[in-house]
Amino acid sequence: MTGGREIEALIKLLAKLPGLGPRSARRAALHMLRHRETLLRPLAHALATAAETVTPCSQCGNLDTVDPCGICRDPKRDPRLICVVEQVADLWALERTRAFAGRYHVLGGTLSALDDVGPEALHIPALIDRVRADAVTEVILALNATVEGQTTAHYIADHLDPTGVAITRLAHGVPVGGELDYLDPGTLTAALTSRRR
Amino acid sequence: MTGGREIEALIKLLAKLPGLGPRSARRAALHMLRHRETLLRPLAHALATAAETVTPCSQCGNLDTVDPCGICRDPKRDPRLICVVEQVADLWALERTRAFAGRYHVLGGTLSALDDVGPEALHIPALIDRVRADAVTEVILALNATVEGQTTAHYIADHLDPTGVAITRLAHGVPVGGELDYLDPGTLTAALTSRRR
Repeated sequence: MTGGREIEALIKLLAKLPGLGPRSARRAALHMLRHRETLLRPLAHALATAAETVTPCSQCGNLDTVDPCGICRDPKRDPRLICVVEQVADLWALERTRAFAGRYHVLGGTLSALDDVGPEALHIPALIDRVRADAVTEVILALNATVEGQTTAHYIADHLDPTGVAITRLAHGVPVGGELDYLDPGTLTAALTSRRR
Repeated sequence: MTGGREIEALIKLLAKLPGLGPRSARRAALHMLRHRETLLRPLAHALATAAETVTPCSQCGNLDTVDPCGICRDPKRDPRLICVVEQVADLWALERTRAFAGRYHVLGGTLSALDDVGPEALHIPALIDRVRADAVTEVILALNATVEGQTTAHYIADHLDPTGVAITRLAHGVPVGGELDYLDPGTLTAALTSRRR
């Protein structure tokens, strides 16, 4: 590399982004330097603004510039329905469906004895408090269908049980548009078992 | 999306980078917001610094924070040897080889009647002036092996001819580590024709 230390520093930081390696970081840096007014300066500004203004919602853990976040303060959303997700990305994915009109609880991960992630770190006691305080009627455990996700879901279900709230999980089955031939046996078994008329 | 307009604006800008789509832009934004002090703020700063300080070298077209650039002002590099490349990315690729100790001339593209890119836009007259002024002995035309690159190379060669400078191009052949089975017939023909003992 030979474009000065400033360009090298920029490329090194860009290469830390998920999905960008050293090669695509160089391409991205050159692309931005060619589009200085339409991309480089606006992106520098957007990053600085995000660093200053975006915070996790103290109620649900979503990221927003206001606290409580836009979802938690939306009066049209049902506070008695809470969807528990692992990450903010999962919340965003569910929001894109426009199929859910309740609120969220972002864990920020899954329980892990190895990485020393306990219930406190995932705000699970706070979730139980919320369920009691807001007279929540249903908690949807929308965790990933991985071992870690399902272990965490079991733990939460066990500890929510005394509150009497209804606990549900997402349905397993064939993805819409999915081909049977490419599905794993577990998903196919679940789709068969939960078959509908 | 639901994380406030600032996050949406950030994701939209990130999605404009080559190699990032809407999905990976969201992942990158969340990753940065999780690593605020080690990635988000430093990257905002690096982009702002690059926008302010990086300029094209007035002699060769390389990008650097000084003008002339580090290569053009390096006394250890031979000013009588000029390597002509299409883009700054090509210059960087050649520099990584550490196999070239001359200077560069970055065209910034290829000749294109359709896009109205003429010799002036590619600084070809300036290249010819440089060849005469610096008593250049060899010009290496390291343009892409595409139709546009080779058309531009021919044009430059024609116009450099009266200066008497030696004009060379990169060798064609089998990439180091490449498998013959995956090579196109044109490359294989070139490799055969230029075979060496």
